[in-house]
Amino acid sequence: MILDLDTGVDDCLAITYALGSPEVELIGITGTYGNVLLGTGVKNDLDLLDLFGHPEVPVYPGIPHAREKDGFEVLEISEFIHGKNGIGEIEIPASNRVAETTPAPEFMVEAVREYGSDVVIVATGPMTNLARAIELDPTFKDNARIVIMGGALTVPGNCNDVMEANISQDPEAADLLFRSGAHVTMIGLDVTLQTLLTYEHTQQWRDLGTPAATALADITDFYIKAYETTAPHLGGCGLHDPLAVAVAIDPSLVTLFPCNIKVDLHEPVRGRTICDEERLNDPVKTADVAIAVDVERFLSEFMSRITSLLKGI
Amino acid sequence: MILDLDTGVDDCLAITYALGSPEVELIGITGTYGNVLLGTGVKNDLDLLDLFGHPEVPVYPGIPHAREKDGFEVLEISEFIHGKNGIGEIEIPASNRVAETTPAPEFMVEAVREYGSDVVIVATGPMTNLARAIELDPTFKDNARIVIMGGALTVPGNCNDVMEANISQDPEAADLLFRSGAHVTMIGLDVTLQTLLTYEHTQQWRDLGTPAATALADITDFYIKAYETTAPHLGGCGLHDPLAVAVAIDPSLVTLFPCNIKVDLHEPVRGRTICDEERLNDPVKTADVAIAVDVERFLSEFMSRITSLLKGI
Repeated sequence: MILDLDTGVDDCLAITYALGSPEVELIGITGTYGNVLLGTGVKNDLDLLDLFGHPEVPVYPGIPHAREKDGFEVLEISEFIHGKNGIGEIEIPASNRVAETTPAPEFMVEAVREYGSDVVIVATGPMTNLARAIELDPTFKDNARIVIMGGALTVPGNCNDVMEANISQDPEAADLLFRSGAHVTMIGLDVTLQTLLTYEHTQQWRDLGTPAATALADITDFYIKAYETTAPHLGGCGLHDPLAVAVAIDPSLVTLFPCNIKVDLHEPVRGRTICDEERLNDPVKTADVAIAVDVERFLSEFMSRITSLLKGI
Repeated sequence: MILDLDTGVDDCLAITYALGSPEVELIGITGTYGNVLLGTGVKNDLDLLDLFGHPEVPVYPGIPHAREKDGFEVLEISEFIHGKNGIGEIEIPASNRVAETTPAPEFMVEAVREYGSDVVIVATGPMTNLARAIELDPTFKDNARIVIMGGALTVPGNCNDVMEANISQDPEAADLLFRSGAHVTMIGLDVTLQTLLTYEHTQQWRDLGTPAATALADITDFYIKAYETTAPHLGGCGLHDPLAVAVAIDPSLVTLFPCNIKVDLHEPVRGRTICDEERLNDPVKTADVAIAVDVERFLSEFMSRITSLLKGI
């Protein structure tokens, strides 16, 4: 597995889900911007991998901004949800490692050339690195297994009426991905707002009493607290990014709707993920969109995998 | 079955589908505005019922305009698609019958009181009559079986980026319906743009050589021709309204997605049908939205039922 992350609290939970899964060999984390600046996310990846006992996993820095922009600034709402440092204002020990020199899109291309569909790329930030990988190698789109956290097909967006946060950062990259012919499993707000974590869950980690477990509980509680303001009707925080990892391991956790997705690039629906009416009757469907989720089973997998990781450190 | 229609070419096809179905006793048509003025639709219903050999079916006039408006004018695009007279500018013999005096919403309420879930209401125009029926009788929403043609959950709208035509006529009525607690099976553009009729199909009716068969072929060809301009990528006309009738008879023709729908009433998404994020985690789902359809089986049912009706006249 390769995780493409803008780390971020739920990206941090995605890392722990992957590290806690015996089926998964995490061969690298690729960094992107979004919840945080690229550099902050890469630093978080390195620090968290050390904290959770996996300093052997390399981190590859990606593209620092959207395709059609020349810079990136973190939104206020992102800082509110994830903290300025991306991990809920919690201080964790700094890694003494540094990121690799190979850029993220090149690493993705090399990995898919070497491992084919034995490697799955789980992207939980903007699709900028994936779009670049598709451009770098014409065989990438045919061989890559891609699962993304992003988009909203049957529910409203979380940035505005139509736009989900990861897609919003780089709609052109997401549209390129969905129209490229690559097969994409889309884990959007349709399902991630159904999988909720509460303080009762994080208390179970806190009870372990180790530094890593306490840090993860603290980081996650910051995120749950933000949700009390941004989405009080939910009664918990959405487990966006870890659900994408979980589905990459076990697709039977969700109900998948095969279709052809496009991303609208014009106002007032810019950033919307929706079925492409011009490919509606094309028998080939390149996307599988999760529209329902076995909440109980996912939460049980989530807690048992992360707890087993934390106990082993 | 009660058909609530704004007749309309595909409403005309819905009538023939119902009349050609041996499982169905059509106990009344209720009239609404939309593709045409209320009065034009009611006249078309009476004329078509006579033409297709069922002058015993009563027609009940409904509310002539949206809840929050005091009038209604037919849109130019509706005239382009359905013709000024609603039935493709084709002249058919005028019925010497007149409509009933009971208003459509009252008839719906009485029918559901008498037959409960043995009657199904198939509404293929604005939801104005249904919303009024819900207000008239508090037990209506609990006992009515409702199938609508309307909305678009996974695909763009056909009026603008988000809005489907039937919902667009009276978004407040549709929102009232979806939030009322009534169970609604929604047959939207998600599936109706997959079920396409072509000139080869209507030629089979034309070959029968009878006045009714020729008239239906002529009416439908007008509609197919309009689609060549409005949706050239489809290669045929969408069988919107008859698919709703078909699903009311045999739900196994479609894949249903259980959810809770709302209709957005604010710009820029006014008229959009989308899952209500505040009822996303409510275990009770009041809507079943069709997201996939067995196109081949539906088209085969469509042709055999309508051809058998036409042959029997």
